[in-house]
Amino acid sequence: MKYGFGVDLGGTTVKIAYFDETGNMMDKWEIPTRTENGGENILPDIAASIREYLSKNAVADSAILGIGIGVPGPVDGAGVVNRCVNLGWGVFNINETLETLTGFPVRAGNDATVAALGECWKGGGQGCKNIAFVTLGTGVGGGIVVDGKVVLGAHGAGGEIGHILLDPTETDTCGCGNHGCVEQYCSATGIVRVAKKYLAANDAPSCLRSIGNLTCKDVFDAGKAGDTAALAILEQVYDYMGRFLSAICCVTNPEVVVLGGGVSKAGAPLLEGAKRYFDKYAFHGCKNVRFELATLGNDAGAYGAFKLVL
Amino acid sequence: MKYGFGVDLGGTTVKIAYFDETGNMMDKWEIPTRTENGGENILPDIAASIREYLSKNAVADSAILGIGIGVPGPVDGAGVVNRCVNLGWGVFNINETLETLTGFPVRAGNDATVAALGECWKGGGQGCKNIAFVTLGTGVGGGIVVDGKVVLGAHGAGGEIGHILLDPTETDTCGCGNHGCVEQYCSATGIVRVAKKYLAANDAPSCLRSIGNLTCKDVFDAGKAGDTAALAILEQVYDYMGRFLSAICCVTNPEVVVLGGGVSKAGAPLLEGAKRYFDKYAFHGCKNVRFELATLGNDAGAYGAFKLVL
Repeated sequence: MKYGFGVDLGGTTVKIAYFDETGNMMDKWEIPTRTENGGENILPDIAASIREYLSKNAVADSAILGIGIGVPGPVDGAGVVNRCVNLGWGVFNINETLETLTGFPVRAGNDATVAALGECWKGGGQGCKNIAFVTLGTGVGGGIVVDGKVVLGAHGAGGEIGHILLDPTETDTCGCGNHGCVEQYCSATGIVRVAKKYLAANDAPSCLRSIGNLTCKDVFDAGKAGDTAALAILEQVYDYMGRFLSAICCVTNPEVVVLGGGVSKAGAPLLEGAKRYFDKYAFHGCKNVRFELATLGNDAGAYGAFKLVL
Repeated sequence: MKYGFGVDLGGTTVKIAYFDETGNMMDKWEIPTRTENGGENILPDIAASIREYLSKNAVADSAILGIGIGVPGPVDGAGVVNRCVNLGWGVFNINETLETLTGFPVRAGNDATVAALGECWKGGGQGCKNIAFVTLGTGVGGGIVVDGKVVLGAHGAGGEIGHILLDPTETDTCGCGNHGCVEQYCSATGIVRVAKKYLAANDAPSCLRSIGNLTCKDVFDAGKAGDTAALAILEQVYDYMGRFLSAICCVTNPEVVVLGGGVSKAGAPLLEGAKRYFDKYAFHGCKNVRFELATLGNDAGAYGAFKLVL
């Protein structure tokens, strides 16, 4: 039996997992992401942590297939990262750098696309070769899997579904500089924005009005408790979700849509609501799509990163 | 040198082309599509025409690699067609049927996706592995090419970009039964619809008002002649195009967008207009996309069909 590592590199922590070649996660741990000085310590820290793990557990180098790593930014097929704002990184080849540091083969990919690969392999999209994995978190990202492979696109920006235009009349600006992106309505922060706009434009009583620092979770919780305003807000959000998910399905006609990220913790109501509007808007030829929640949670990135090595 | 055939099966004519293995078109001709009696004569007619060509030109069977064919309906990877309304066809395996009739290997595909493959191979997307081919004709179809392969999707409905939702407030019904699809604004008939709505809602003088049976070409011609109303109508159309093309590019991040179909005969103004709104709406990571006109015209289907054989 051979083994390998899957690394999910985030802006505050690095998740590292040890797998056997069949994809069983044998172990996992975290180290802090040191972003100071242009993030120069990040890859050496990861290499040292992996080396330490191997020596502590007396694993021979010859048993290691390699290291897969998901990073929060665009990465091309050769492993060249093109700026990770959250890490302070510029442009360089991750594969080569981490190979030199560890002596093992390295495969890098974008974190969202790698998480998609993980869900496709061992999670909500298991057994499917065509999936749309949608990460509803602080932002909205995604991984589009066609014939078992994540679509990277010509410049590593495949699956950047958080910036599909939903409303050209939007006046607020998205983080990307455009107006009316999916992220402004369907991310955790987007849902709070939709809620605040609704509450400002309506006089309806709502338990949400008494909450000081409104969160996305508050909106879903209020909805579950039957708060009329919260339910109306969520209908708007589900409508936006149905629109962009149906657009994605017209392009690649996946077998399953997998919803992940922090927002997906809302569970069944989210799944049902998004599917209901999807069914309203989707082209009949692309309608035969299952909706699933991501099942690997925070581990999807590590699973998918290791899958890059296989 | 080996040879083969590329067949583009349409509702009124069948275009048959003879290629050498490098993709040089050596010859081409047409036969009528006999759709009576459930289209039972269509494949036998094609087989007879190919057999006649080979015997007339004294080509040995051993020199023939096979036959590729594009058909106007969904076709799965095994060659099973799932109803071609225009041909009277139900559900059967085209590959097997035409192989039995001719004795040559057969590969069938959907006509729009096959045309995309043709443009990718020898036309406007030549040399690119990631393209979005958009057919702006009576309807709007497309072929999304990822890593050199046309995306079929889970149920053969990949590239059904004509039914991406653009305007959920639309009251007119699309041919598919939904409301606000791309096809209602960007197809030849959609552009005429947009023009008529504009002319009814505005008092501005326009040469278009005196045209009895307004066509899409009339609108572009009037625009080229400087008609203010026509130019305003085309701005609306380009705006719609920019919106859905930017959505596609967020999903698969192609290197080039190739515009084909009858509407693309409008040429440079269409290309420039659609690109201008694309640049307005596209996510920065997906903006680095060339816009090209399809160059193979009516031959794209035959080229792409033959490519299926290789």
